[in-house]
Amino acid sequence: MTDGDDDVPLILTWDDASSGLLEEDENGVGNYDIVNNVVIPAPGAADPRGQNSLRQSWEMNYQEAAIYLQEGENNDKFFTHPRNAQVLSAYLFAHNHLFYVMELLTAVLLMLLSLSEAPAVPFLRLDVYVHATLELLALVLVAFELCMKLRWLGFHTFIRHKRTMVKTCVLFIQFIEAIVVLVRQTSHLRVTRALRPIFLVDCRYCGAVRRNLRQIFQSLPPFIDILLLLLFFMVIFAILGFCLFSANTADNYFRTLEDSIVSLFVLLTTANFPDVMMPAYSKSRWSCIFFIVYLSIELYFIMNLLLAVVFDTFNGVEKMKFKSLLLHKRSAIEHAFQLLVSRQRPGGVSLKQFDGLMRFYHPRMTARDRFLTFKALNQSGATMLSLEDFYKFYEVIGLKWKAKRIGEHWFDDFPRTAFLIFKGINLLVKSKAFQYAMYLVVAINGIWILVETNTFHDGVSWNRDVPFSYIIFLTIYGTEVLLKIAGLGLMTYFSSGWNLFDFSVTVFAFLGLIALAFDMEPFYFIVVLRPLQLLRLFKIKQRYRNVLDTMFELFPRMASLGLTLIIFYYSFAIVGMEFFAGVVYPNCCNNSTVADSYRQINVTVGNQTKLEEGYYYLNNFNNILSSFVTLFELTVVNNWYITMEGVTSQTTHWSRLYFMTFYIVTMVVMTIIVAFILDAFVFRMNYSRKNREPLGDPEDEKGIVFETEVSQTEAVHTLDLYKHTFGVTNLSSLQDMCVALERSGHSSLVFLGRRSRTKSDLSMKMYEEEIQEWYEEYSRTNLQTDETFHRDLDSPEASATDSIN
Amino acid sequence: MTDGDDDVPLILTWDDASSGLLEEDENGVGNYDIVNNVVIPAPGAADPRGQNSLRQSWEMNYQEAAIYLQEGENNDKFFTHPRNAQVLSAYLFAHNHLFYVMELLTAVLLMLLSLSEAPAVPFLRLDVYVHATLELLALVLVAFELCMKLRWLGFHTFIRHKRTMVKTCVLFIQFIEAIVVLVRQTSHLRVTRALRPIFLVDCRYCGAVRRNLRQIFQSLPPFIDILLLLLFFMVIFAILGFCLFSANTADNYFRTLEDSIVSLFVLLTTANFPDVMMPAYSKSRWSCIFFIVYLSIELYFIMNLLLAVVFDTFNGVEKMKFKSLLLHKRSAIEHAFQLLVSRQRPGGVSLKQFDGLMRFYHPRMTARDRFLTFKALNQSGATMLSLEDFYKFYEVIGLKWKAKRIGEHWFDDFPRTAFLIFKGINLLVKSKAFQYAMYLVVAINGIWILVETNTFHDGVSWNRDVPFSYIIFLTIYGTEVLLKIAGLGLMTYFSSGWNLFDFSVTVFAFLGLIALAFDMEPFYFIVVLRPLQLLRLFKIKQRYRNVLDTMFELFPRMASLGLTLIIFYYSFAIVGMEFFAGVVYPNCCNNSTVADSYRQINVTVGNQTKLEEGYYYLNNFNNILSSFVTLFELTVVNNWYITMEGVTSQTTHWSRLYFMTFYIVTMVVMTIIVAFILDAFVFRMNYSRKNREPLGDPEDEKGIVFETEVSQTEAVHTLDLYKHTFGVTNLSSLQDMCVALERSGHSSLVFLGRRSRTKSDLSMKMYEEEIQEWYEEYSRTNLQTDETFHRDLDSPEASATDSIN
Repeated sequence: MTDGDDDVPLILTWDDASSGLLEEDENGVGNYDIVNNVVIPAPGAADPRGQNSLRQSWEMNYQEAAIYLQEGENNDKFFTHPRNAQVLSAYLFAHNHLFYVMELLTAVLLMLLSLSEAPAVPFLRLDVYVHATLELLALVLVAFELCMKLRWLGFHTFIRHKRTMVKTCVLFIQFIEAIVVLVRQTSHLRVTRALRPIFLVDCRYCGAVRRNLRQIFQSLPPFIDILLLLLFFMVIFAILGFCLFSANTADNYFRTLEDSIVSLFVLLTTANFPDVMMPAYSKSRWSCIFFIVYLSIELYFIMNLLLAVVFDTFNGVEKMKFKSLLLHKRSAIEHAFQLLVSRQRPGGVSLKQFDGLMRFYHPRMTARDRFLTFKALNQSGATMLSLEDFYKFYEVIGLKWKAKRIGEHWFDDFPRTAFLIFKGINLLVKSKAFQYAMYLVVAINGIWILVETNTFHDGVSWNRDVPFSYIIFLTIYGTEVLLKIAGLGLMTYFSSGWNLFDFSVTVFAFLGLIALAFDMEPFYFIVVLRPLQLLRLFKIKQRYRNVLDTMFELFPRMASLGLTLIIFYYSFAIVGMEFFAGVVYPNCCNNSTVADSYRQINVTVGNQTKLEEGYYYLNNFNNILSSFVTLFELTVVNNWYITMEGVTSQTTHWSRLYFMTFYIVTMVVMTIIVAFILDAFVFRMNYSRKNREPLGDPEDEKGIVFETEVSQTEAVHTLDLYKHTFGVTNLSSLQDMCVALERSGHSSLVFLGRRSRTKSDLSMKMYEEEIQEWYEEYSRTNLQTDETFHRDLDSPEASATDSIN
Repeated sequence: MTDGDDDVPLILTWDDASSGLLEEDENGVGNYDIVNNVVIPAPGAADPRGQNSLRQSWEMNYQEAAIYLQEGENNDKFFTHPRNAQVLSAYLFAHNHLFYVMELLTAVLLMLLSLSEAPAVPFLRLDVYVHATLELLALVLVAFELCMKLRWLGFHTFIRHKRTMVKTCVLFIQFIEAIVVLVRQTSHLRVTRALRPIFLVDCRYCGAVRRNLRQIFQSLPPFIDILLLLLFFMVIFAILGFCLFSANTADNYFRTLEDSIVSLFVLLTTANFPDVMMPAYSKSRWSCIFFIVYLSIELYFIMNLLLAVVFDTFNGVEKMKFKSLLLHKRSAIEHAFQLLVSRQRPGGVSLKQFDGLMRFYHPRMTARDRFLTFKALNQSGATMLSLEDFYKFYEVIGLKWKAKRIGEHWFDDFPRTAFLIFKGINLLVKSKAFQYAMYLVVAINGIWILVETNTFHDGVSWNRDVPFSYIIFLTIYGTEVLLKIAGLGLMTYFSSGWNLFDFSVTVFAFLGLIALAFDMEPFYFIVVLRPLQLLRLFKIKQRYRNVLDTMFELFPRMASLGLTLIIFYYSFAIVGMEFFAGVVYPNCCNNSTVADSYRQINVTVGNQTKLEEGYYYLNNFNNILSSFVTLFELTVVNNWYITMEGVTSQTTHWSRLYFMTFYIVTMVVMTIIVAFILDAFVFRMNYSRKNREPLGDPEDEKGIVFETEVSQTEAVHTLDLYKHTFGVTNLSSLQDMCVALERSGHSSLVFLGRRSRTKSDLSMKMYEEEIQEWYEEYSRTNLQTDETFHRDLDSPEASATDSIN
């Protein structure tokens, strides 16, 4: 492995870099010509440049390559790529975790402000000048961030970037409003606060939310088409219903056409069924046909059609997104590769260049890991990485490297007696009998809990004293955990998610026991988590393991969908608070049809008197937390019309628009969520069917594993290289590796790189054949534009990616 | 085309057929050997047999071939194929539409009896001896049908056929019970009536229902797994909920563990949300977390998981079903082919044999159509159908043949002036402008109806006098219909479903007008259908046309799913009636939590007195019609717990089991329905994407079309053939064809065979590549068992089919 110290980069990055390296050119008599930023040596000329400027230009190249790779990873468009050294500093300023965290915190702060702004959550109320000042502060921070972005993007790109422009406008409005609030010392009707989530959505860390929103918007056109069909049938049936039932004076649901439409809209959600049918049904039994036909068409057919259309769109979009992301990454890798190869050897990237790249790309990666990653990429065993090797960059970059333990058990080095004891424990905990015995214990525990709980009819005293059974079962579980840890070793034990679950439930149960023993009121909830132990029973069956595994795999995506929903909630909550804060209270809606649900007075029924409690006044928009709960109730849909009618009776009937809009919006989001879960599971099942492996295969659970063997001579040589040639200072990791190699007494050590399997890995395997086609198609389009490849950042495939991002 | 009159069948069907044809063999000196039922002529021998016995054996072969093809079409297992002439007569008796109709009517009669049995629908009540006698009669008929089946299947097959055995047992029980009822002259607790739908399910015409049931049962195992997960979480949360909330005395939902479980079961259906949360929420705002987590896990995650699992199973089953049906048909075709070829020419089926087959297979098909179908099959143009040709049998058999009109318009033969007028009308109605003008009229009509309806606030008087607008719009629509019929001709007009819809809506509107004019009370409902005109607006957009077209395509399948649901309803209704008839009535449930919904008394609220009307007593099981409506309400789920609690408070708390079971059963059926709709639409969309045709392509709408050209000489020759050789008597259709050919003055006529496109056609195109693989795989398995092919009816592919059927 020889790294010529005088290698010259094939391409010189950033226009002004040439001034440092190729100053001779300015005199017109240099040894290089620069054509299209590619350095072409004048024939027969030597390399007369200083080592320093050469090193500097390599560093520049490393940095730009790292930026390309980051852009590829984050799916950033290439047209926002920094084009020269001035822009670079702004780019670097705006692209590090400190900046991202600041961005996120400002956005979260802005959103949290609504907890304290009137109508505030009681115990978080702040004075107007406090929250307005906080808001101004946050907005100034946002403005600062935007300025940084402006510096980096340049004015031209900045104003063409839609999301940023929207953000700027919103910022401007919020700024003015915040100042107005400060001046007037009181909040006015600030519906624009509903736009605050835009700042959050624009955060670097909220890419998943942006992707969800995009997916929602992409599903909208077909969705709206079917929605129109739905509403059309609703109106037709409303007219029919009005004609048929308005003659019945006992029927409040169809008195006017508006009543009729509202009733059928609510019926769409089934929330007023069968009440809406009852007055008509009691008059004529045949009237039920109207409702049955309506529900069959609308609820059971068109609603499912909505799901089908969204599911179909979703399916297509998922695949297209994967494709464009894949090609975008490939393009990023190609850009980076061009920057890393030297003029002398344009076909490959040497370890030195790779190491330089990684120092920019992953500054915290140790020298050893950089070396191992290079080896993992270097499948062919040559000294250089070819472009083909380099294409695998994103697959190996997330690997966590660890030396493979040579011994089988953690206690291999123990003395003979101890070894035998631990070996015995190891065999025990690995045995089927032990597992099934534990299942049996859990099952008995489950039945015990059920029976025990069933005997406590008063429900108050039961959790004051520690039941005997509790201690017994807990002892068994505790022993099991200890045995398993002893038998498998701490690392192996905790590498399984199920063991982690066992462990935490048992620890929680112990904490609960302590809470019980010391009578600590606020920790009682821990005791109550006891039945979660029973969840372990689901390990028995393969299908459940798969379902739960898939659940964990889906979790990040689910969380981002949840966040998306919360963003919608937030906007609706703000609007709700501005218009409906304080409008419902006990006994408020006596002139509406839902008065009962808000009534809290003594009622005489026959000759009995009792307190009738209608709790619906609790479903209000009095502060943002209450609003969220109310909106969740509206999402669940059941009885949502009671809240709607309550609010409507206290305001105008236009309020219904708010509730109906909310219903439709949540319907879209919920349909997307259903489509997502459906797609994810069907994909998983197809995947395991296609690859003919049982779901949740043990090998599958381990994620992606790469193996790399390092011999002793190689290690020493690499250490030398790093020390003397690369000029890297922090080499402790490499030295450790050499020491470990010496100590082990073997001539080589195997290192394992692991990472968890992502959806992208599954997709790679699922679309294997199509991916080849895409690559071919991509390189065909690429060849056509290859003349301008090196700086052509708006090439077709890049813009295709852009449209997705 | 020469059909040797003395062709001998390659195979002789039915064991005893040999006795007629090959009597020489009985003397041991015949010219044929029979090996494995294949006639092998003794070398060099002439054909000394009588024409009559030859014809007779051909007829036998035609009949058996027709039976094979019918079995293929109906997906009947081959092991029930009649094996000899004795069985044949029983088979023929049990396989004709008269028998099927009798079967169906008996089953329907049995089911309808529950309308008249106590608790009966008031105006249909019959005396015990009347309905018991009717039941006995019907049961005797069923017994007779079973006897026929026994004769055909033979005792051995009969008792191995599960469905038939179940039917027999049910019949036996019903018989005894009916006699007991007759003797005691009063109905006892007859829960077994819930088994009556078995007779319906077993009907020949209810094959689709059987298929649905099978699909439901196939989806059950994974469904139950996930259901257990669902219930498990429910129980865990019930224990948690009991621990957390039972201390709150105001909270009725979590007082005991049973309450807790029931509350959370109902919450699973969202029916008691947010009420179930309110008492806890009013005490501590944090308690909402419990409910949000519960609903998120159960409703939004696991319920969707259920759908995903069922959808996935459904997908797989649909494909497997299609595959096995396809191979079963192929196998049937091969069996039939072997029976139709002659010893002299074993490679092909001649027109004579085909004609003979068709006379058995489709007795009502005209000679002309038989001839045209033969020509449609005969792609190669040879005189014989090869096996390859014959494989297309099922594709051409449903074609309706019609001579292609040579002229473009129906008025081509009219005198010049009339022709020009009609041509003008034709151009007018085909013009875009005319179409859009009509859309505009419909839109205006829609707005008009909305505005008009909105102004009628009393809602009573409006439909007494004919509004002026009504007459105007109706005149426009009427004119449109007349113009279109004049311009396109009656046939072309009615060949489009949309025109048919236009026509019927307009005719209904006219009937409504007449009803209005003559003040016929019972026909007012027709007037009310007026807004359906607006549906025509959806023709504008392609997507809607597709949706509505797909809807029509799905209709038969949907109907069978509906019927399946009704069968479940029926069983549950019987059980409900037996246990809960008459238990709820106004003011019945005063000691339950849902007393309000059943209360019908004056209530004093504050200082007002009003009649509080709880209509829920109408949701009862007092007769089968009420039960059906109640069950539909339970299916819609909203507020179902009111019915449950009402009934429970009047009976025991075990009644809840009935309602919960019903919920779970409908959940299964509903999930299947959703999965079906999802699958059907996604399939359609994939199909049109794969075939790169826009959905609802004009050509697509026409269905499947075959073209066949018949020349004059061919026609005459065929007529001769039929007359003199085949001995077919009813030849008017062929004669008509000859006459038409002569009259047209052309040397040949083109005939078009049309049928509508079925799901099977779409599947054929979708799985094109896989089908080839299946065929190859099939013929490979077939070759292995080919030695015993001709009579080996339990061959592997047949049993594979059997397991699906």
